[in-house]
Amino acid sequence: MTTSAGVSTALLTDHYELTMLSAALRDGTAGRRSVFEAFGRRLPDGRRYGVVAGTGRLLDALADFRFGDAELSFLREHKVVDEPTLEWLSSYRFTGDVWGYAEGEVYFPGSPMLIIESTFAEAVVLETLVLSILNHDTAIASAASRMTAAAEDRPCIEMGSRRTHEEAAIAAARAAYIAGFTTTSNLEAGRRYGVPTTGTAAHAFTLLHDDERAAFQSQVDTFGTDTTLLVDTYDVTNAVNLAIEIAGPQLGAVRLDSGDLLQQAREVREQLDSLGATSTRIVVTSDLDEFAIAALQAGPVDGYGVGTQLVTGSGAPTAGLVYKLVAREDSSGELLGVAKKSKDKTSIGGRKYAFRRRDPRGVAEAEVIGIGAAAANDPSTGLRTSADDRTLLVPLVEHGERVFTGTLDDARKRHTTSRGELPPTARQMSRGEPVIPTLYQREEKERMS
Amino acid sequence: MTTSAGVSTALLTDHYELTMLSAALRDGTAGRRSVFEAFGRRLPDGRRYGVVAGTGRLLDALADFRFGDAELSFLREHKVVDEPTLEWLSSYRFTGDVWGYAEGEVYFPGSPMLIIESTFAEAVVLETLVLSILNHDTAIASAASRMTAAAEDRPCIEMGSRRTHEEAAIAAARAAYIAGFTTTSNLEAGRRYGVPTTGTAAHAFTLLHDDERAAFQSQVDTFGTDTTLLVDTYDVTNAVNLAIEIAGPQLGAVRLDSGDLLQQAREVREQLDSLGATSTRIVVTSDLDEFAIAALQAGPVDGYGVGTQLVTGSGAPTAGLVYKLVAREDSSGELLGVAKKSKDKTSIGGRKYAFRRRDPRGVAEAEVIGIGAAAANDPSTGLRTSADDRTLLVPLVEHGERVFTGTLDDARKRHTTSRGELPPTARQMSRGEPVIPTLYQREEKERMS
Repeated sequence: MTTSAGVSTALLTDHYELTMLSAALRDGTAGRRSVFEAFGRRLPDGRRYGVVAGTGRLLDALADFRFGDAELSFLREHKVVDEPTLEWLSSYRFTGDVWGYAEGEVYFPGSPMLIIESTFAEAVVLETLVLSILNHDTAIASAASRMTAAAEDRPCIEMGSRRTHEEAAIAAARAAYIAGFTTTSNLEAGRRYGVPTTGTAAHAFTLLHDDERAAFQSQVDTFGTDTTLLVDTYDVTNAVNLAIEIAGPQLGAVRLDSGDLLQQAREVREQLDSLGATSTRIVVTSDLDEFAIAALQAGPVDGYGVGTQLVTGSGAPTAGLVYKLVAREDSSGELLGVAKKSKDKTSIGGRKYAFRRRDPRGVAEAEVIGIGAAAANDPSTGLRTSADDRTLLVPLVEHGERVFTGTLDDARKRHTTSRGELPPTARQMSRGEPVIPTLYQREEKERMS
Repeated sequence: MTTSAGVSTALLTDHYELTMLSAALRDGTAGRRSVFEAFGRRLPDGRRYGVVAGTGRLLDALADFRFGDAELSFLREHKVVDEPTLEWLSSYRFTGDVWGYAEGEVYFPGSPMLIIESTFAEAVVLETLVLSILNHDTAIASAASRMTAAAEDRPCIEMGSRRTHEEAAIAAARAAYIAGFTTTSNLEAGRRYGVPTTGTAAHAFTLLHDDERAAFQSQVDTFGTDTTLLVDTYDVTNAVNLAIEIAGPQLGAVRLDSGDLLQQAREVREQLDSLGATSTRIVVTSDLDEFAIAALQAGPVDGYGVGTQLVTGSGAPTAGLVYKLVAREDSSGELLGVAKKSKDKTSIGGRKYAFRRRDPRGVAEAEVIGIGAAAANDPSTGLRTSADDRTLLVPLVEHGERVFTGTLDDARKRHTTSRGELPPTARQMSRGEPVIPTLYQREEKERMS
């Protein structure tokens, strides 16, 4: 079912999407032009901003959303839908339009991260695919960005594959790279997406050998002195002495994976310097998160390896995005904004447009969401805007054809730029409100004023 | 890269596993007989037990762990390892033995959930694959079991696909089924694993139509009266009246997805009964977790749909299992227990054996882990045991061939039995200690005593 293999993604779908389709085909509403929107009602508790990721993966998956024999046979045998629906699905191909925030862009509560316009039938079946990909990748990128912000110019290495589902691990490595991580341990992320990979040795390698000396000697013999030796299997001080004895002061790095990392890093730095290994780096790992990284900035640390807390979103493993019908054609053919009125989950109906209001120095001031207007930064719609503002929605798919061609490195650069525009409080680790407010502007109101 | 497609799983691997392999092949230790063990140092905060899941998926993935042209070309081009290592990988095939706790079995801190015995080279490259699958699936099954325990005889429906990675969603549906969920919304989980699927309609279906009446009528026309109508798009009381007006008192169910679910369920039950729809069920959804389910047991609820909190492990999105070298051949050919001495992460070396001590009524009393003994429930080893005890490790792979053939339904039944053996406090939702202690017995000590 992975997109890279060109395998169908069509059953990465909730059962109810096909039952809704079935009833809508039967009652004649399936062809109504509709606008669906993916957005988050809020950021994870106390976060100042979020980071969009997954859009590139979604566009791959959309191209593979086809119902072949295997998918149709399953649906027929299990009586999920009737024959006319199966017939319709057999020729399914998305022919509508998609706009979205480009990957790496920051977002806020209510940001219309993805907008799909097509018939109801074509868009309703994409709900789970859209949300699975965006919720996962956005959660990881949002956590990763806080880590790289905390680490400032020190590199962060993604090494969380073992703590999450094996395919989620690959997507997590990709999302972390967008948000500023420099490398990953995950080889498939290297093969599939070109994320640089890295890795040296675990404790098992030391334990395999008769003693630490034999293990270090083997590693240096195989990879040269510019390698990273893991020095906490037995006694750190002894191991650091041994490491420099074997590799010489040109040893690339030592890795600490346990204990009080700040204190140990200071002690090891002093020891390395006293041994003449002044350029040997210190890499730390061991359940790091953005708070631990921020605290370790006070110490002589040259790189952070982050695992569990990255791939689990550092307390927010899902972005909580929802996919809602916000407008649909009425019986007279006009597009009508719609929204449910459920007690605690109201949505704002209508096709959305979005721009980031910026002051003349380029600092972000507000997330401005236009409702029903043709283009948010078009003065003809009546929305206040200035030359400093920046449009956020970019065309991704037009008439079913992918038109967005940005690369992963583009997304990585975009994130640096987008995060760099935020007020400095965005980088605070403490809990607080979103760093800029979300403002809604309705076409009608603006025109009346 | 999914196993069902027979695509290689070989690069679902951390870079350092192959660098360790490379150095070990060069220094002559790669062929040392080794025992690796997957276990958790602790349960998630306050949990009373955990639930093993993923073993079946792991056995599928192990069969597809082969390095083909695509994998070898990547490793060569990116200089991950040298030519002799590539040569070795090109003929890789696991030929060792694997034992493990069967899926659905409960586990505790220190339980040796998976044991792999082979050469160092064959086992070291499996670390990430083993941990990714077991950490994810076990986290989900462990959360799911608390939910089904809280729900008692009321059915739980898995509907969290949209809140997690698209492939993790399928594995989550499978793990939830093992832990007692009755159905899933995920169609691919139905196709791939035979988990029963279910679903009816979202708010979008109501909003698509000119009014709620048209939507309800369409759904009943298409699926008959034994369907579930979503009644909280506008006003619940009006919607329930309308639902019974259209479907009659034989309506299958109504679904509530917002508001105070307990109060609403009571009001809707009264309303349904007053309309003569005494057998129409009430299904509730909306960010449920085990605590919400426990609270809703006081109300007239007939089924729980669980999403976000299930697929994110209800606060514990990873099981935190580790994969450690615990024994390896020494230069004289004897198997030697090994363990690192890192300050805060010590492990217990040695090949493990495990049984669950039970009292004569079959109630679990302790998780007993033998170290180095040939078989924990064999009196010849000197370990105290009784006919009431139960061996936990079952053979999964022998000489590279899969020997375990249990089905998903077997795992589901096994979970019911295994959980049913635990003392009643296992079902308490409050935080506490593991419901039974983990005891270690060393062969040597026992023989001396």
